[in-house]
Amino acid sequence: MTLHVAPETFHVFDTTLRDGAQQEGVRLSVADKLRIARLLDELGVGFIEGGWPGANPSDTEFFARAAEGELELRNAKLVAFGATRKVGATAATDPQVQALLDARTEVICIVAKSHDEHVFRALKTTLAENLEMIRDTVAHMVSQGRRVFVDCEHFFDGYRANPDYALEVVRTAAEAGAEVVILCDTNGGMLPSWMGDVVSAAGQIGVDLGIHCHNDTGCAVANTLAAVEAGVMHVQGTMNETGERTGNANLITVIANLQLKYGWQVIPPEGLVEASRISHAVAAITNVPMNNRAPYVGLSAFAHKAGLHASAIKVDANLYQHIDPTLVGNDMRMLVSDMAGRANIQLKGSELGYDLSDRDLAAQITDLVKEREMAGYSYESADASFELLLRERLGLPDDFYEVISWRVFTSSQVGPEGDSEATVKLRVNGETEALVGEGHGPLNALDVALRRALVRAYPQVDSFELTDYRVRILDQGHGTDAIVRTLIDTTDGERTWTTVGVGDSVVEASWEALHEAYRWGLIQRVAAEAAEPALETVSA
Amino acid sequence: MTLHVAPETFHVFDTTLRDGAQQEGVRLSVADKLRIARLLDELGVGFIEGGWPGANPSDTEFFARAAEGELELRNAKLVAFGATRKVGATAATDPQVQALLDARTEVICIVAKSHDEHVFRALKTTLAENLEMIRDTVAHMVSQGRRVFVDCEHFFDGYRANPDYALEVVRTAAEAGAEVVILCDTNGGMLPSWMGDVVSAAGQIGVDLGIHCHNDTGCAVANTLAAVEAGVMHVQGTMNETGERTGNANLITVIANLQLKYGWQVIPPEGLVEASRISHAVAAITNVPMNNRAPYVGLSAFAHKAGLHASAIKVDANLYQHIDPTLVGNDMRMLVSDMAGRANIQLKGSELGYDLSDRDLAAQITDLVKEREMAGYSYESADASFELLLRERLGLPDDFYEVISWRVFTSSQVGPEGDSEATVKLRVNGETEALVGEGHGPLNALDVALRRALVRAYPQVDSFELTDYRVRILDQGHGTDAIVRTLIDTTDGERTWTTVGVGDSVVEASWEALHEAYRWGLIQRVAAEAAEPALETVSA
Repeated sequence: MTLHVAPETFHVFDTTLRDGAQQEGVRLSVADKLRIARLLDELGVGFIEGGWPGANPSDTEFFARAAEGELELRNAKLVAFGATRKVGATAATDPQVQALLDARTEVICIVAKSHDEHVFRALKTTLAENLEMIRDTVAHMVSQGRRVFVDCEHFFDGYRANPDYALEVVRTAAEAGAEVVILCDTNGGMLPSWMGDVVSAAGQIGVDLGIHCHNDTGCAVANTLAAVEAGVMHVQGTMNETGERTGNANLITVIANLQLKYGWQVIPPEGLVEASRISHAVAAITNVPMNNRAPYVGLSAFAHKAGLHASAIKVDANLYQHIDPTLVGNDMRMLVSDMAGRANIQLKGSELGYDLSDRDLAAQITDLVKEREMAGYSYESADASFELLLRERLGLPDDFYEVISWRVFTSSQVGPEGDSEATVKLRVNGETEALVGEGHGPLNALDVALRRALVRAYPQVDSFELTDYRVRILDQGHGTDAIVRTLIDTTDGERTWTTVGVGDSVVEASWEALHEAYRWGLIQRVAAEAAEPALETVSA
Repeated sequence: MTLHVAPETFHVFDTTLRDGAQQEGVRLSVADKLRIARLLDELGVGFIEGGWPGANPSDTEFFARAAEGELELRNAKLVAFGATRKVGATAATDPQVQALLDARTEVICIVAKSHDEHVFRALKTTLAENLEMIRDTVAHMVSQGRRVFVDCEHFFDGYRANPDYALEVVRTAAEAGAEVVILCDTNGGMLPSWMGDVVSAAGQIGVDLGIHCHNDTGCAVANTLAAVEAGVMHVQGTMNETGERTGNANLITVIANLQLKYGWQVIPPEGLVEASRISHAVAAITNVPMNNRAPYVGLSAFAHKAGLHASAIKVDANLYQHIDPTLVGNDMRMLVSDMAGRANIQLKGSELGYDLSDRDLAAQITDLVKEREMAGYSYESADASFELLLRERLGLPDDFYEVISWRVFTSSQVGPEGDSEATVKLRVNGETEALVGEGHGPLNALDVALRRALVRAYPQVDSFELTDYRVRILDQGHGTDAIVRTLIDTTDGERTWTTVGVGDSVVEASWEALHEAYRWGLIQRVAAEAAEPALETVSA
């Protein structure tokens, strides 16, 4: 496979902020968009489609703030998206066209209809007028000094229905001055082996082509690659496959395939090694749960749990992974799970710095993990809780504090500190501490109370902050009376760790995960301080 | 594209219960496996790989219970999976081989190494002994009256490293009597355009070939289709793409593409229309959240929220979808969201049976939805809460009861009824009801108390049962002090509805969703009873 164009003229075009925002459940503020755009620039994409100025007040604001210096991009060009002028208008006087120019981007991407039925039934005009709308709009924008890309909406369905007209749309855009004409599989019904002939037909026109795929047949990435193989030099997609219906082509998967499988450098290598971090960060900002199974960057993408494999992985990890995960900033992970054999547990132990080479000990710990997972615990993502379990078994218990009791009260009367009040009673260094905390909800109130009860003896806890918690009902079909698993993420500013709790109620499970979060954090901080003597000691 | 084999000899082979169970976080009990197998049979797959008897006690039990009549399959054959005999043993005396025969299935699928490096480094034997292990094991099973399929593990990496040996493995399996030899992309690194040459080379051997793909390049479905186009007549995959790392090929996507795009009937059409129900049911049993964006069967697969599209969809829905969603048991959905235009709200209203043709009214409701979504509500999946909002705006309030106050207390001391005690004070039909409920956790206790306070006036609430709740932290980065959104699913045995609540705490948000669940349920039950007079009334 040879690259049809020089790498520097191959376009990687991200539309997370525009087409990705069509996804069910996604809502992006202007601040979210600015943060995502900076991340995309770090990744090294060439173009960032930011939204539709004029159609949406927050998109107009995004482009205004970007133009006023809030967004300094090193790699990427910002692109404003919009439609051709209205039926019967002129581009030079159409306010929507003017709004696109007012966005002050070097590049504008215009959507044009290329399926005859859509011209008749959605646009309610003639085929000739649609061509004139494209010609007029593109030519006007070019005359205003803009680089213009044209998205041919519904191109593949249009080509099937009326190939001459679909190609005429491409030709019209090219003749009016479009730099790239993008073939869009808007309804997402294409398959890879259908792609080559259509792209080749459009390729006869002589303009640079792009491709924009949706995942309705589960083939968005493969369709994109098939179009690239047929000669397109511009690929569109989104972070984490966000987008309407089944989503857009996953741009990181496309990039990683082009770069690591075909060997074409389409983004800087120093961007690709940030791919995992960037895709997780975008997921957090868009508030869409990250797909653990995402190719290349998912938490599970290089995770192994089969006992069968684990022993062989010790021999040579590369026999069991299709690429080196560090190329995309990911890691191989051994999973601790009830399917785990002893070999997994031993590998996991050494990953955490514990010697489990004793076979009996490793077998005992394996049994213990299986038993706990039967009861609802899940150590696959809760490494900190697994380490606490391991330390207990290895006779390395922590004795920072002992819990005597706790209780928490929530009511419809909300006070200034929240709706909940908790009391936590502990024994710390031989003394009993009973402290009250208020907060929004039981976990917050318990967190405040526990922190207050510990801070005198362990000032380190002041740096602990709970950043996320996830609640899972394990025994579905039993309504609110079911086993609950809670995972809590905690940070001390330097690292983030995850703990798990299980109980009959969300409060009981949350308490356990909270307690483990404090214990694990204290172990790390105390160990770090023991390793690095404090300055006073050194100077003494 | 023409089908290379008659439909009745094309194999659809599901491995959810075996390879799918390798997924991080998935644990299947024997009862789970029996339920999933029945669903797969309803879908109409030809083969169900049930697990590895002998290697795993619960898999042994699954096959025993299946053989003893607990699993009556109409369409599918059950398949036992296992490995070739051990190095240096003989198949006739190897206990693992015997365990496979003891599973009493008509078909056995044997995994064989086909990558020379894996033979050396994982199996630690010679290339000749590996071939002998395959020959011996397959021949023994055939001599015992079994149909044998052979999975060539790491076939594509093996073919790249040593094509002659990889093909020799296929030939050995065929000559020993294997009915189908499956080419496995075990590490998942293949791309569709690399597939044809390799499959064609193996096709020269003359045995029927199968394909088994993983999704590490995001191309598992496309790789499977490319192999089918190159001549394989047996496709392996899993429900919902479950599987190790990035998962296996999504079998429903493969089936739907073959059946609806290529026009090959590979499962009965009456199975395909059940695809959405079955894939959601399997997700519930495996306890893996359903991917809303799953092709064909995802909740969002035919969902539209763009205001731009909504007006055109009214004209002709087929202009905006790649297939008729009812073919896979799915539905077009209009989403209520803050990106929704008035047209979406009007369509959604008529879906629920309300006339919103008045443009001003529809615009007001659209604004109200946008405002509420800004505050954290999400009506996209909470149709019941949207309907309550709509009814309030339309002057159709419900006045079943008025909430005066509530409070709930949870502690580390667990009593016989749980760890939580709630008090709910309501005004019902002019009277004040204050009832106490105990339960596991605050939501359960509040549910018990609310139900007790209502049941005298509304005995219908006795049939309401909360089946699931989901908690989402909206404002990540603020630890436990953040906006919380709760979604609750409730059933009355006839239908299930979803409500949403938002608050500073999980308890406050849960209370709101709980209250809305009861209100919506009461509206439906009271309306139903008004429409159908009770039996006593009729006979009086």
